[in-house]
Amino acid sequence: MTSNPPTARTRLRRLHERGRHDSDSIHAVLDAGLLCHIGYVVDGGPVVTPTLHWREGERVYWHGSAASRMVRHLAEGHPLCLTVSHFDGMVMARSAFHHSVNYRSAMLFGTARAITDPEAKTRHLKAFMERWFPGRWDELRSIHAQELKATTVLSMAIDEASTKMRAGPPKDDEEDYALPIWAGVLPLNTVVGEPEPCPRLAEGVAAPAYLRAFAPK
Amino acid sequence: MTSNPPTARTRLRRLHERGRHDSDSIHAVLDAGLLCHIGYVVDGGPVVTPTLHWREGERVYWHGSAASRMVRHLAEGHPLCLTVSHFDGMVMARSAFHHSVNYRSAMLFGTARAITDPEAKTRHLKAFMERWFPGRWDELRSIHAQELKATTVLSMAIDEASTKMRAGPPKDDEEDYALPIWAGVLPLNTVVGEPEPCPRLAEGVAAPAYLRAFAPK
Repeated sequence: MTSNPPTARTRLRRLHERGRHDSDSIHAVLDAGLLCHIGYVVDGGPVVTPTLHWREGERVYWHGSAASRMVRHLAEGHPLCLTVSHFDGMVMARSAFHHSVNYRSAMLFGTARAITDPEAKTRHLKAFMERWFPGRWDELRSIHAQELKATTVLSMAIDEASTKMRAGPPKDDEEDYALPIWAGVLPLNTVVGEPEPCPRLAEGVAAPAYLRAFAPK
Repeated sequence: MTSNPPTARTRLRRLHERGRHDSDSIHAVLDAGLLCHIGYVVDGGPVVTPTLHWREGERVYWHGSAASRMVRHLAEGHPLCLTVSHFDGMVMARSAFHHSVNYRSAMLFGTARAITDPEAKTRHLKAFMERWFPGRWDELRSIHAQELKATTVLSMAIDEASTKMRAGPPKDDEEDYALPIWAGVLPLNTVVGEPEPCPRLAEGVAAPAYLRAFAPK
Protein backbone atom coordinates (compact mmCIF):
# COMPACT_ATOMS: atom_id res chain seq x y z
CA MET A 1 0.00 0.00 0.00
CA THR A 2 1.70 3.17 -1.22
CA SER A 3 1.30 6.29 0.83
CA ASN A 4 1.14 9.86 -0.47
CA PRO A 5 2.72 11.94 2.29
CA PRO A 6 0.41 14.86 3.16
CA THR A 7 1.41 18.30 1.89
CA ALA A 8 0.18 21.66 3.16
CA ARG A 9 -2.79 21.25 0.83
CA THR A 10 -3.69 17.64 1.50
CA ARG A 11 -3.08 17.60 5.25
CA LEU A 12 -6.54 17.28 6.79
CA ARG A 13 -7.16 20.11 9.18
CA ARG A 14 -10.57 19.20 10.51
CA LEU A 15 -12.04 15.79 11.36
CA HIS A 16 -8.75 14.25 10.31
CA GLU A 17 -9.86 10.86 11.64
CA ARG A 18 -12.08 10.73 8.54
CA GLY A 19 -9.10 11.09 6.21
CA ARG A 20 -6.71 8.80 4.40
CA HIS A 21 -3.67 9.36 2.21
CA ASP A 22 -2.97 5.82 1.04
CA SER A 23 -3.27 4.89 -2.64
CA ASP A 24 -5.80 2.11 -2.13
CA SER A 25 -8.28 4.47 -0.49
CA ILE A 26 -7.73 7.18 -3.11
CA HIS A 27 -8.06 4.72 -5.99
CA ALA A 28 -11.26 3.28 -4.55
CA VAL A 29 -12.94 6.70 -4.50
CA LEU A 30 -11.74 7.56 -8.01
CA ASP A 31 -12.74 4.18 -9.43
CA ALA A 32 -16.25 4.12 -7.95
CA GLY A 33 -17.61 6.67 -10.41
CA LEU A 34 -17.06 8.72 -13.52
CA LEU A 35 -17.95 12.28 -12.53
CA CYS A 36 -15.32 14.62 -11.15
CA HIS A 37 -15.15 18.38 -10.71
CA ILE A 38 -11.98 20.14 -11.83
CA GLY A 39 -11.06 23.53 -10.43
CA TYR A 40 -8.65 25.93 -12.11
CA VAL A 41 -7.91 29.63 -12.07
CA VAL A 42 -8.67 31.98 -14.96
CA ASP A 43 -7.81 35.68 -14.61
CA GLY A 44 -7.37 35.22 -10.87
CA GLY A 45 -10.81 33.67 -10.41
CA PRO A 46 -11.78 30.04 -9.83
CA VAL A 47 -13.76 27.97 -12.34
CA VAL A 48 -15.17 24.51 -11.53
CA THR A 49 -16.04 22.27 -14.47
CA PRO A 50 -17.66 18.84 -14.23
CA THR A 51 -16.15 16.18 -16.44
CA LEU A 52 -15.58 12.42 -16.59
CA HIS A 53 -12.36 10.86 -15.33
CA TRP A 54 -10.73 7.47 -15.29
CA ARG A 55 -7.62 6.05 -13.64
CA GLU A 56 -4.74 4.04 -15.03
CA GLY A 57 -2.23 3.03 -12.37
CA GLU A 58 -0.96 6.06 -10.53
CA ARG A 59 -2.41 8.62 -12.96
CA VAL A 60 -5.86 10.07 -13.45
CA TYR A 61 -7.13 10.91 -16.95
CA TRP A 62 -9.87 12.99 -18.51
CA HIS A 63 -10.61 14.23 -22.00
CA GLY A 64 -12.46 16.90 -23.86
CA SER A 65 -12.73 18.89 -27.01
CA ALA A 66 -9.44 20.44 -28.04
CA ALA A 67 -11.47 23.67 -28.33
CA SER A 68 -12.70 23.66 -24.72
CA ARG A 69 -11.52 26.44 -22.46
CA MET A 70 -10.85 24.05 -19.60
CA VAL A 71 -8.86 21.66 -21.76
CA ARG A 72 -6.75 24.36 -23.41
CA HIS A 73 -6.04 26.05 -20.09
CA LEU A 74 -5.01 22.87 -18.29
CA ALA A 75 -2.91 21.63 -21.20
CA GLU A 76 -0.75 24.70 -20.57
CA GLY A 77 0.20 23.26 -17.19
CA HIS A 78 -1.74 25.54 -14.86
CA PRO A 79 -2.44 24.17 -11.37
CA LEU A 80 -5.67 22.28 -10.85
CA CYS A 81 -7.68 20.51 -8.19
CA LEU A 82 -9.64 17.42 -9.17
CA THR A 83 -12.34 16.42 -6.70
CA VAL A 84 -14.53 13.31 -6.76
CA SER A 85 -17.46 13.07 -4.33
CA HIS A 86 -19.90 10.26 -3.68
CA PHE A 87 -22.91 11.29 -1.63
CA ASP A 88 -23.87 8.11 0.22
CA GLY A 89 -26.56 9.23 2.60
CA MET A 90 -28.22 11.90 4.70
CA VAL A 91 -27.39 11.48 8.37
CA MET A 92 -30.28 12.66 10.49
CA ALA A 93 -29.55 13.37 14.12
CA ARG A 94 -31.70 14.52 17.03
CA SER A 95 -30.35 18.07 16.75
CA ALA A 96 -29.85 20.16 13.62
CA PHE A 97 -26.21 20.61 14.55
CA HIS A 98 -25.38 16.90 14.39
CA HIS A 99 -27.03 16.32 11.03
CA SER A 100 -24.38 15.19 8.60
CA VAL A 101 -23.70 13.43 5.35
CA ASN A 102 -22.25 10.01 4.61
CA TYR A 103 -19.82 10.45 1.75
CA ARG A 104 -16.55 9.45 0.16
CA SER A 105 -14.46 12.13 -1.50
CA ALA A 106 -11.01 12.48 -2.99
CA MET A 107 -9.10 15.67 -3.69
CA LEU A 108 -6.10 15.65 -6.04
CA PHE A 109 -3.74 18.54 -6.72
CA GLY A 110 -1.23 18.98 -9.49
CA THR A 111 -0.79 19.95 -13.11
CA ALA A 112 -1.95 18.13 -16.20
CA ARG A 113 -0.04 16.86 -19.19
CA ALA A 114 -1.65 16.63 -22.62
CA ILE A 115 -1.14 13.39 -24.51
CA THR A 116 -0.40 14.28 -28.12
CA ASP A 117 0.72 11.05 -29.75
CA PRO A 118 -2.34 9.70 -31.64
CA GLU A 119 -1.59 6.07 -30.75
CA ALA A 120 -1.19 6.84 -27.07
CA LYS A 121 -4.36 8.94 -27.18
CA THR A 122 -6.28 6.04 -28.74
CA ARG A 123 -4.93 3.62 -26.13
CA HIS A 124 -6.09 5.82 -23.27
CA LEU A 125 -9.53 6.49 -24.76
CA LYS A 126 -9.94 2.75 -25.19
CA ALA A 127 -8.95 2.20 -21.57
CA PHE A 128 -11.66 4.69 -20.53
CA MET A 129 -14.34 2.87 -22.55
CA GLU A 130 -13.17 -0.57 -21.46
CA ARG A 131 -13.16 0.41 -17.80
CA TRP A 132 -16.97 0.59 -17.86
CA PHE A 133 -18.00 -1.28 -21.03
CA PRO A 134 -15.55 -4.13 -21.63
CA GLY A 135 -15.56 -5.20 -25.27
CA ARG A 136 -17.41 -2.15 -26.61
CA TRP A 137 -14.41 -0.37 -28.10
CA ASP A 138 -13.86 -3.08 -30.71
CA GLU A 139 -17.56 -3.11 -31.63
CA LEU A 140 -17.61 0.60 -32.45
CA ARG A 141 -17.04 2.30 -35.77
CA SER A 142 -13.30 2.95 -35.57
CA ILE A 143 -12.08 6.39 -34.63
CA HIS A 144 -11.18 8.84 -37.42
CA ALA A 145 -7.88 10.72 -37.44
CA GLN A 146 -9.84 14.00 -37.44
CA GLU A 147 -11.81 12.95 -34.33
CA LEU A 148 -8.60 12.09 -32.51
CA LYS A 149 -7.18 15.46 -33.46
CA ALA A 150 -10.26 17.22 -32.10
CA THR A 151 -9.94 15.38 -28.77
CA THR A 152 -7.42 16.19 -26.09
CA VAL A 153 -6.55 13.61 -23.45
CA LEU A 154 -5.14 15.04 -20.24
CA SER A 155 -3.53 13.20 -17.36
CA MET A 156 -2.14 13.97 -13.95
CA ALA A 157 -0.04 12.03 -11.47
CA ILE A 158 -1.87 11.00 -8.32
CA ASP A 159 0.78 12.08 -5.87
CA GLU A 160 -0.68 14.97 -3.91
CA ALA A 161 -4.01 13.56 -2.84
CA SER A 162 -6.25 12.77 0.07
CA THR A 163 -9.61 11.15 0.69
CA LYS A 164 -12.19 11.77 3.31
CA MET A 165 -15.23 9.75 4.22
CA ARG A 166 -18.00 9.33 6.73
CA ALA A 167 -20.18 6.28 7.20
CA GLY A 168 -22.55 5.00 9.83
CA PRO A 169 -25.33 6.32 12.06
CA PRO A 170 -25.64 9.82 13.51
CA LYS A 171 -23.59 10.81 16.54
CA ASP A 172 -25.65 12.79 18.99
CA ASP A 173 -24.97 14.46 22.27
CA GLU A 174 -25.27 11.77 24.93
CA GLU A 175 -28.29 13.39 26.60
CA ASP A 176 -30.16 13.61 23.27
CA TYR A 177 -30.31 9.89 22.46
CA ALA A 178 -33.34 9.39 24.69
CA LEU A 179 -35.40 12.06 22.88
CA PRO A 180 -38.42 10.80 20.90
CA ILE A 181 -37.01 12.08 17.59
CA TRP A 182 -36.42 9.93 14.54
CA ALA A 183 -32.72 9.61 13.81
CA GLY A 184 -30.86 7.49 11.31
CA VAL A 185 -29.54 7.44 7.79
CA LEU A 186 -31.30 7.88 4.46
CA PRO A 187 -29.01 6.00 2.07
CA LEU A 188 -28.53 7.47 -1.40
CA ASN A 189 -27.64 5.23 -4.31
CA THR A 190 -27.03 5.74 -7.98
CA VAL A 191 -29.02 3.27 -10.04
CA VAL A 192 -28.89 2.57 -13.73
CA GLY A 193 -32.32 2.53 -15.33
CA GLU A 194 -33.53 0.41 -18.21
CA PRO A 195 -31.38 1.01 -21.31
CA GLU A 196 -33.21 3.34 -23.73
CA PRO A 197 -32.36 2.18 -27.25
CA CYS A 198 -31.75 4.88 -29.83
CA PRO A 199 -34.90 5.43 -31.90
CA ARG A 200 -32.76 4.80 -34.98
CA LEU A 201 -31.17 1.57 -33.72
CA ALA A 202 -30.47 -0.82 -36.60
CA GLU A 203 -32.91 -3.72 -36.69
CA GLY A 204 -32.00 -6.83 -34.72
CA VAL A 205 -29.30 -5.23 -32.54
CA ALA A 206 -29.62 -6.61 -29.01
CA ALA A 207 -28.54 -4.81 -25.85
CA PRO A 208 -25.01 -6.02 -25.02
CA ALA A 209 -24.44 -7.83 -21.72
CA TYR A 210 -22.00 -5.18 -20.49
CA LEU A 211 -24.86 -2.68 -20.16
CA ARG A 212 -26.18 -4.70 -17.21
CA ALA A 213 -22.82 -4.60 -15.49
CA PHE A 214 -22.55 -0.80 -15.56
CA ALA A 215 -22.72 0.34 -11.94
CA PRO A 216 -21.17 3.70 -11.20
CA LYS A 217 -21.66 5.48 -7.90
CA MET B 1 -38.64 34.97 -16.15
CA THR B 2 -35.62 36.97 -15.06
CA SER B 3 -32.54 36.77 -17.20
CA ASN B 4 -28.94 36.96 -16.01
CA PRO B 5 -27.11 38.62 -18.88
CA PRO B 6 -24.04 36.55 -19.79
CA THR B 7 -20.66 37.88 -18.68
CA ALA B 8 -17.24 36.93 -20.03
CA ARG B 9 -17.31 34.01 -17.60
CA THR B 10 -20.85 32.77 -18.12
CA ARG B 11 -21.07 33.24 -21.87
CA LEU B 12 -21.14 29.74 -23.29
CA ARG B 13 -18.34 29.27 -25.76
CA ARG B 14 -19.00 25.77 -26.96
CA LEU B 15 -22.28 23.96 -27.63
CA HIS B 16 -24.07 27.14 -26.63
CA GLU B 17 -27.37 25.67 -27.81
CA ARG B 18 -27.20 23.58 -24.64
CA GLY B 19 -27.01 26.67 -22.43
CA ARG B 20 -29.46 28.91 -20.61
CA HIS B 21 -29.10 32.06 -18.55
CA ASP B 22 -32.66 32.50 -17.27
CA SER B 23 -33.45 32.25 -13.57
CA ASP B 24 -36.01 29.47 -13.90
CA SER B 25 -33.49 27.14 -15.54
CA ILE B 26 -30.77 28.01 -13.03
CA HIS B 27 -33.11 27.58 -10.05
CA ALA B 28 -34.30 24.22 -11.37
CA VAL B 29 -30.75 22.83 -11.47
CA LEU B 30 -29.90 24.23 -8.03
CA ASP B 31 -33.13 22.97 -6.46
CA ALA B 32 -32.93 19.43 -7.83
CA GLY B 33 -30.20 18.37 -5.42
CA LEU B 34 -28.10 19.18 -2.38
CA LEU B 35 -24.52 18.59 -3.48
CA CYS B 36 -22.46 21.36 -5.02
CA HIS B 37 -18.75 21.85 -5.59
CA ILE B 38 -17.24 25.18 -4.61
CA GLY B 39 -13.97 26.33 -6.14
CA TYR B 40 -11.76 29.00 -4.62
CA VAL B 41 -8.13 30.05 -4.82
CA VAL B 42 -5.64 29.60 -1.98
CA ASP B 43 -2.05 30.75 -2.47
CA GLY B 44 -2.65 31.02 -6.22
CA GLY B 45 -3.90 27.45 -6.53
CA PRO B 46 -7.46 26.16 -6.94
CA VAL B 47 -9.28 24.10 -4.31
CA VAL B 48 -12.61 22.37 -4.96
CA THR B 49 -14.68 21.42 -1.92
CA PRO B 50 -17.95 19.49 -2.01
CA THR B 51 -20.67 20.84 0.24
CA LEU B 52 -24.48 21.08 0.51
CA HIS B 53 -26.33 24.11 -0.79
CA TRP B 54 -29.85 25.45 -0.79
CA ARG B 55 -31.59 28.37 -2.47
CA GLU B 56 -33.81 31.12 -1.12
CA GLY B 57 -35.10 33.43 -3.83
CA GLU B 58 -32.24 34.91 -5.80
CA ARG B 59 -29.50 33.76 -3.42
CA VAL B 60 -27.75 30.45 -2.86
CA TYR B 61 -26.68 29.39 0.66
CA TRP B 62 -24.35 26.88 2.22
CA HIS B 63 -22.94 26.38 5.70
CA GLY B 64 -20.07 24.84 7.52
CA SER B 65 -17.97 24.83 10.61
CA ALA B 66 -16.69 28.27 11.48
CA ALA B 67 -13.29 26.54 11.74
CA SER B 68 -13.29 25.20 8.18
CA ARG B 69 -10.69 26.53 5.79
CA MET B 70 -13.23 26.90 3.00
CA VAL B 71 -15.71 28.75 5.16
CA ARG B 72 -13.15 31.13 6.66
CA HIS B 73 -11.63 31.87 3.27
CA LEU B 74 -14.93 32.55 1.53
CA ALA B 75 -16.28 34.64 4.42
CA GLU B 76 -13.42 37.03 3.62
CA GLY B 77 -15.06 37.73 0.27
CA HIS B 78 -12.66 35.94 -2.08
CA PRO B 79 -14.07 35.00 -5.50
CA LEU B 80 -15.69 31.62 -5.85
CA CYS B 81 -17.34 29.38 -8.40
CA LEU B 82 -20.23 27.19 -7.26
CA THR B 83 -21.06 24.33 -9.60
CA VAL B 84 -23.96 21.89 -9.38
CA SER B 85 -24.00 18.87 -11.70
CA HIS B 86 -26.61 16.18 -12.19
CA PHE B 87 -25.39 13.19 -14.18
CA ASP B 88 -28.55 11.90 -15.88
CA GLY B 89 -27.25 9.23 -18.21
CA MET B 90 -24.52 7.73 -20.36
CA VAL B 91 -25.12 8.41 -24.05
CA MET B 92 -23.77 5.58 -26.12
CA ALA B 93 -23.23 6.25 -29.80
CA ARG B 94 -21.98 4.11 -32.70
CA SER B 95 -18.56 5.78 -32.55
CA ALA B 96 -16.43 6.55 -29.51
CA PHE B 97 -16.33 10.18 -30.55
CA HIS B 98 -20.08 10.71 -30.30
CA HIS B 99 -20.42 9.12 -26.88
CA SER B 100 -21.69 11.73 -24.48
CA VAL B 101 -23.41 12.36 -21.20
CA ASN B 102 -26.91 13.55 -20.38
CA TYR B 103 -26.62 16.09 -17.61
CA ARG B 104 -27.85 19.33 -16.10
CA SER B 105 -25.31 21.68 -14.59
CA ALA B 106 -25.22 25.19 -13.22
CA MET B 107 -22.18 27.39 -12.70
CA LEU B 108 -22.39 30.45 -10.43
CA PHE B 109 -19.69 33.07 -9.92
CA GLY B 110 -19.39 35.72 -7.24
CA THR B 111 -18.36 36.34 -3.67
CA ALA B 112 -19.99 35.15 -0.49
CA ARG B 113 -21.33 37.03 2.48
CA ALA B 114 -21.31 35.52 5.95
CA ILE B 115 -24.52 35.80 7.96
CA THR B 116 -23.59 36.74 11.49
CA ASP B 117 -26.87 37.62 13.20
CA PRO B 118 -27.89 34.52 15.22
CA GLU B 119 -31.59 34.93 14.43
CA ALA B 120 -30.98 35.28 10.72
CA LYS B 121 -28.61 32.29 10.85
CA THR B 122 -31.28 30.20 12.56
CA ARG B 123 -33.88 31.24 10.00
CA HIS B 124 -31.67 30.18 7.10
CA LEU B 125 -30.66 26.86 8.66
CA LYS B 126 -34.34 26.14 9.25
CA ALA B 127 -35.07 26.97 5.60
CA PHE B 128 -32.40 24.44 4.58
CA MET B 129 -33.91 21.70 6.74
CA GLU B 130 -37.48 22.52 5.73
CA ARG B 131 -36.60 22.48 2.05
CA TRP B 132 -36.09 18.72 2.21
CA PHE B 133 -37.77 17.64 5.47
CA PRO B 134 -40.80 19.85 6.09
CA GLY B 135 -41.77 19.87 9.75
CA ARG B 136 -38.54 18.35 11.04
CA TRP B 137 -36.96 21.53 12.39
CA ASP B 138 -39.63 21.93 15.06
CA GLU B 139 -39.31 18.27 16.10
CA LEU B 140 -35.58 18.58 16.78
CA ARG B 141 -33.85 19.39 20.03
CA SER B 142 -33.53 23.17 19.70
CA ILE B 143 -30.24 24.65 18.61
CA HIS B 144 -27.79 25.84 21.31
CA ALA B 145 -26.20 29.28 21.13
CA GLN B 146 -22.79 27.60 21.11
CA GLU B 147 -23.74 25.47 18.11
CA LEU B 148 -24.94 28.53 16.21
CA LYS B 149 -21.68 30.25 17.01
CA ALA B 150 -19.70 27.30 15.68
CA THR B 151 -21.65 27.35 12.39
CA THR B 152 -21.15 29.85 9.61
CA VAL B 153 -23.87 30.40 7.04
CA LEU B 154 -22.67 31.82 3.74
CA SER B 155 -24.71 33.17 0.89
CA MET B 156 -24.16 34.52 -2.59
CA ALA B 157 -26.36 36.36 -5.08
CA ILE B 158 -27.32 34.34 -8.13
CA ASP B 159 -26.55 37.01 -10.70
CA GLU B 160 -23.61 35.72 -12.70
CA ALA B 161 -24.75 32.26 -13.61
CA SER B 162 -25.43 29.85 -16.44
CA THR B 163 -26.77 26.36 -16.89
CA LYS B 164 -25.98 23.74 -19.45
CA MET B 165 -27.78 20.51 -20.19
CA ARG B 166 -28.01 17.63 -22.59
CA ALA B 167 -30.89 15.18 -22.91
CA GLY B 168 -32.04 12.63 -25.42
CA PRO B 169 -30.55 9.91 -27.61
CA PRO B 170 -27.09 9.86 -29.18
CA LYS B 171 -26.37 11.88 -32.29
CA ASP B 172 -24.29 9.91 -34.74
CA ASP B 173 -22.79 10.64 -38.11
CA GLU B 174 -25.53 10.02 -40.65
CA GLU B 175 -23.68 7.11 -42.27
CA ASP B 176 -23.20 5.37 -38.90
CA TYR B 177 -26.88 4.92 -37.97
CA ALA B 178 -27.17 1.79 -40.09
CA LEU B 179 -24.30 0.02 -38.33
CA PRO B 180 -25.21 -3.03 -36.21
CA ILE B 181 -23.97 -1.41 -32.98
CA TRP B 182 -26.08 -0.91 -29.88
CA ALA B 183 -26.69 2.77 -29.24
CA GLY B 184 -28.89 4.52 -26.75
CA VAL B 185 -28.94 5.95 -23.26
CA LEU B 186 -28.25 4.34 -19.90
CA PRO B 187 -30.24 6.53 -17.51
CA LEU B 188 -28.72 7.25 -14.11
CA ASN B 189 -30.93 8.04 -11.15
CA THR B 190 -30.37 8.81 -7.52
CA VAL B 191 -32.59 6.69 -5.33
CA VAL B 192 -33.18 6.88 -1.62
CA GLY B 193 -32.87 3.51 0.08
CA GLU B 194 -34.79 2.23 3.08
CA PRO B 195 -34.30 4.51 6.08
CA GLU B 196 -31.75 2.99 8.48
CA PRO B 197 -32.89 3.85 12.00
CA CYS B 198 -30.17 4.78 14.46
CA PRO B 199 -29.28 1.75 16.63
CA ARG B 200 -29.99 3.94 19.66
CA LEU B 201 -33.39 5.20 18.46
CA ALA B 202 -35.76 5.78 21.38
CA GLU B 203 -38.43 3.10 21.66
CA GLY B 204 -41.65 3.66 19.75
CA VAL B 205 -40.36 6.42 17.44
CA ALA B 206 -41.82 5.88 13.97
CA ALA B 207 -40.22 7.00 10.72
CA PRO B 208 -41.75 10.39 9.82
CA ALA B 209 -43.70 10.68 6.56
CA TYR B 210 -41.31 13.30 5.17
CA LEU B 211 -38.57 10.65 4.86
CA ARG B 212 -40.56 9.07 2.01
CA ALA B 213 -40.80 12.37 0.15
CA PHE B 214 -37.03 12.98 0.12
CA ALA B 215 -35.99 12.76 -3.52
CA PRO B 216 -32.81 14.59 -4.41
CA LYS B 217 -31.09 14.15 -7.73
